[in-house]
Amino acid sequence: MTQPLPVQQAAARLKEAGSVLILCHKNPDGDTLGCASALYHALASLGRTAAVLCADPIPPRFGYLRPRLYRGDFEPALTVAVDVASLQLLGAVAQTTAGPRRVDLCIDHHAGNSGYAQYSLVDPDAAAAAELLCDVIEAMGVQLTPQIAACLYTGLATDTGCFRFANTTAQTHRAAARLIEAGARVDELNTILFATKSRGQMEAERVARSHLEYHLDGRCALLWLTREEIAASGADPADLDELTSLPAGIEGVRAGLTFRQQPGGSWRVSIRTAQGVDACAIARRLGGGGHLRAAGCELQGALDNVKAAVLAETAAVLDGPEPEQPDQKEGR
Amino acid sequence: MTQPLPVQQAAARLKEAGSVLILCHKNPDGDTLGCASALYHALASLGRTAAVLCADPIPPRFGYLRPRLYRGDFEPALTVAVDVASLQLLGAVAQTTAGPRRVDLCIDHHAGNSGYAQYSLVDPDAAAAAELLCDVIEAMGVQLTPQIAACLYTGLATDTGCFRFANTTAQTHRAAARLIEAGARVDELNTILFATKSRGQMEAERVARSHLEYHLDGRCALLWLTREEIAASGADPADLDELTSLPAGIEGVRAGLTFRQQPGGSWRVSIRTAQGVDACAIARRLGGGGHLRAAGCELQGALDNVKAAVLAETAAVLDGPEPEQPDQKEGR
Repeated sequence: MTQPLPVQQAAARLKEAGSVLILCHKNPDGDTLGCASALYHALASLGRTAAVLCADPIPPRFGYLRPRLYRGDFEPALTVAVDVASLQLLGAVAQTTAGPRRVDLCIDHHAGNSGYAQYSLVDPDAAAAAELLCDVIEAMGVQLTPQIAACLYTGLATDTGCFRFANTTAQTHRAAARLIEAGARVDELNTILFATKSRGQMEAERVARSHLEYHLDGRCALLWLTREEIAASGADPADLDELTSLPAGIEGVRAGLTFRQQPGGSWRVSIRTAQGVDACAIARRLGGGGHLRAAGCELQGALDNVKAAVLAETAAVLDGPEPEQPDQKEGR
Repeated sequence: MTQPLPVQQAAARLKEAGSVLILCHKNPDGDTLGCASALYHALASLGRTAAVLCADPIPPRFGYLRPRLYRGDFEPALTVAVDVASLQLLGAVAQTTAGPRRVDLCIDHHAGNSGYAQYSLVDPDAAAAAELLCDVIEAMGVQLTPQIAACLYTGLATDTGCFRFANTTAQTHRAAARLIEAGARVDELNTILFATKSRGQMEAERVARSHLEYHLDGRCALLWLTREEIAASGADPADLDELTSLPAGIEGVRAGLTFRQQPGGSWRVSIRTAQGVDACAIARRLGGGGHLRAAGCELQGALDNVKAAVLAETAAVLDGPEPEQPDQKEGR
């Protein structure tokens, strides 16, 4: 249904189009925004009309990407989606008044890409869509400016946990080298992307760490934050996602649990597991879901009861047989 | 006093020596241990006698580097120090019964290398000594095995905070690409180096974070650990280096200070700064030294006095003119 397109031809189509609409996935991350912005700047440098459309606002820390946002001010000759695995992931912009949005070209690195676009450049071996975009933009004959390089570096760095995850390859590092030579400022970008925490985040982390507990003979670690503690810390609740990887990163721990109380009083439970432990199986037993090593659910009740319920299911999975599926992917 | 030696000649000297003693710096980190181990494996693959000497034990998590340790069982024809900026940093092994140890060759990336060796290969633009060692080992005509690649990757990754710090260059990424192609397992190594913490480390971090203080209108954040707290936590003191980046990573903080009490009672002060703030200038005023954005010193006295002394010098530098030198270095 979709037709695969090599890098050179994808570049040619983008270059030949008089005007291009670039689509991001909803809840945008560094890769979809970095790719869309890089492509916008590349097309603009060729004098083309281009703009970026995303169902959700761009988080403030990505402000330096400086894409032009689409305001319906031109009728695109070509529509391209970057880092978008399926039409649903476009969110509110998947539908137009005329029906499902027609996407001419998709540039992506998700193995599960649904093939929704007329033409697709999909490489599941690329650590980030930005790794592919590097090649596409060079094939367009565009000089990598510091601005374009910063956008693409953002995609590479965020999708690989700054070159830490298993999806990082020699190709990823070579792409990063090219971007640094083109003017990407590693220090500034990584400070924005990884190194800076608010005082509120520090305070919330302090409190959460003071609640650290070990269970199930040390195979399970957990921590929690009540809604009052979150409010008192001054942290933006959206900035507390990092906490979820903390208990699972402790020596000997096979399942790490994080309990964050929501404004309504329920508990959002995040489950992170070591290789060979099915986080999704734990979550499913509690009405939730997710991936093999990162899953979650939401439960009502007093913290002690919620903890006991999740620990019981965690014990059942830890003591049960290993999941069959080999766990290889960690990147997004 | 020391004679500079290009990569090819350093490689030739190492290759020609019948037996080689490889020296690490005290409180060994991933770069000095990764380099020493890589060089040991490279020399062993050529059938040479070689072994590694360090004043302190190798932290258990670096066990996979598998160097052969020196037991005084051979008289080295050549002594080489890796990632060692001065003789003092050799610690207890700087002295032999015959007097100060004679070092024939030094391979290092510290701009402040004291030139203690007869021949020196020092490149301050290298993010890690391991970046230099990659070239040296290839110039020795040694095939990069997965074991050697894992050792060198360890040096690169630990000295750059996994390619996050400002010292990371295009060259660093290219070296990483070569090492991955040679068989370095990014996922396994980074899990060991960055994702796993001992219970003791978690406890030490909890205590240190509970001591977090803001000073100088929020431009300075600091935390500390007494020797009793370190002992009670059960953490290996060598595993507490990560703490040093914590205070400097808080929004608005220009200088982050960490005070770790040493077994003898003195305070090891680590200084990390934002762009434009000269950490080394602060350290030098207190008898220490280091890089532009990562420096340190060691002070005697009660914690309150030590804090006051360091805060006074920090204030002087924060209120003074910006350093002239453009800021590029952050590694150790």
